[in-house]
Amino acid sequence: MPERVDVTWHAHSVTRAEREALNGHRGCVVWFTGLSGSGKSTVANAVDAQLLARGVRSFLLDGDNIRHGLNASPELLAEYGDSFARRFGLGFSAEDRQENIRRIGAVAQLFAAAGIVTLTAFVSPYRRDRDAVRRQVEAQGAPGDFIEVFVDAPLDVCEARDPKGLYQRARAGQLPGFTGVSDPYEPPQNPELVLPSAELPPNILAQRVIVYLQSCKKIP
Amino acid sequence: MPERVDVTWHAHSVTRAEREALNGHRGCVVWFTGLSGSGKSTVANAVDAQLLARGVRSFLLDGDNIRHGLNASPELLAEYGDSFARRFGLGFSAEDRQENIRRIGAVAQLFAAAGIVTLTAFVSPYRRDRDAVRRQVEAQGAPGDFIEVFVDAPLDVCEARDPKGLYQRARAGQLPGFTGVSDPYEPPQNPELVLPSAELPPNILAQRVIVYLQSCKKIP
Repeated sequence: MPERVDVTWHAHSVTRAEREALNGHRGCVVWFTGLSGSGKSTVANAVDAQLLARGVRSFLLDGDNIRHGLNASPELLAEYGDSFARRFGLGFSAEDRQENIRRIGAVAQLFAAAGIVTLTAFVSPYRRDRDAVRRQVEAQGAPGDFIEVFVDAPLDVCEARDPKGLYQRARAGQLPGFTGVSDPYEPPQNPELVLPSAELPPNILAQRVIVYLQSCKKIP
Repeated sequence: MPERVDVTWHAHSVTRAEREALNGHRGCVVWFTGLSGSGKSTVANAVDAQLLARGVRSFLLDGDNIRHGLNASPELLAEYGDSFARRFGLGFSAEDRQENIRRIGAVAQLFAAAGIVTLTAFVSPYRRDRDAVRRQVEAQGAPGDFIEVFVDAPLDVCEARDPKGLYQRARAGQLPGFTGVSDPYEPPQNPELVLPSAELPPNILAQRVIVYLQSCKKIP
C-alpha cells in the first residue's frame, strides 16, 4: 500500500503494554459468529454495556458501523467513480465476503493493539475466513488474543425470529447466496465459547462472556 | 458489504458519549500530512507519548501497522490467490492511493467513535482524499472531529534528511510516482495546525498539538 517504505517493523514509542496498563485490562478480539437472527448483535451489545459498567474500554464492530464506511457496497462508493466502486466495493460473492472478513479482522487487531476489548458481530459463515483472522490477530499480538464465540441457535429458530425479514426474502428467492438457506454456515470446530441463544436470554449469555474474559485474565 | 441488512442506522446500546465519559476526554482524528521525511511519524509518536503521560487514550495509525494488514500490498495478499490480491491489494496508482486513504479514514473514524484520540501519519498527498476523510469523519461524528496537521518542511530539507533513502531511489528513477519528486504534494489550504518541522524539534511541535487539543476541549 502507498507509503514508500520498506516493509520492516520498528517499535512504536508507545507500546501495547503501556496502553493496556493505562486501561487496567488487556486488549483482545471477541469474535461473535452465527446465523442471521441468532442474536450475535444483541449479545455483543449486552457484553459491551456490561464492560462499560465495569470500566472496561470496549468497542463493537458490526454491520452498522462497518457497512457505511470501511466495507461499503459498490453503490455507496459510487461517488468515487464506477471503476473504483466496482473494484473496492463489497458485494456478496465468496471473494467479497472473504475481503469483508479480512478487513474487519485487520481492524479488530488494531483495536486490540490499542488495548480495547474489541467485539465483532458478523455472520462470518466460512471457517477458513475466521481462521485466517485468528492467525492474523495472534501473529500480530499473542495466542489467546482471538476469542471465537459461537452464537448457536438452530436454523428454524433463527428463521422463525427473522427480525429483519431476511429469511422470508431469501426463501422467496430475493436474496441469492443467503447463509443458512442457499449458502452454507460452517460452525466453529473449537470455539472458545458456545452460547445457546435459543435457550438463554442475552444478558445471561453476555455474563458468560464476561466470566470467560475474567478467567483468561483479559479483564479484572 | 456482506451482511444482508437494510442500510439503516440504529443506536448502539453503548453510545460514543458514554465511552468518552469513561475515558474523561473526547475521541477525534488528528491527521498528520506532509512529505516523506517531514517528520510526521516522529511528531505523531511524540504526541502519542505525551497523551499517554496525561492518561489520555490514544492510538497511532501509520504505515507500520496499516501496511501489514488492512492495506497490504498485492504481494502480501498472495496467499489469497492472484485475482483477490490484484483486486484488493494496494499499490501506487492514483486509485490505489485513494482507496488507501479512504480505508484509513474509515478506521480512524471508528477509533474516534470509540473515544480514542486517533493519530494518523501518512503522506496523504492529495487534498481531495484528505477532504473526503474530513467529510466522512465529521458526518459520522461532529464538526471539529477532524484535525488536519500539516507537517511543513521544505522539500530540500526532507530530501537532505532522507531517513529511509527513498528520495535517493526516487531520483534514480527506481520509485516512479514518488511524492515531491515525480508526483505532486498538495498542501492543506486550511489546516487546523501547521508545524514547521524544519525549524523546531518534535517534542515542541507535539506540545503544540497537545495545546490545540486542550483549546478545543478534546482533552482536559
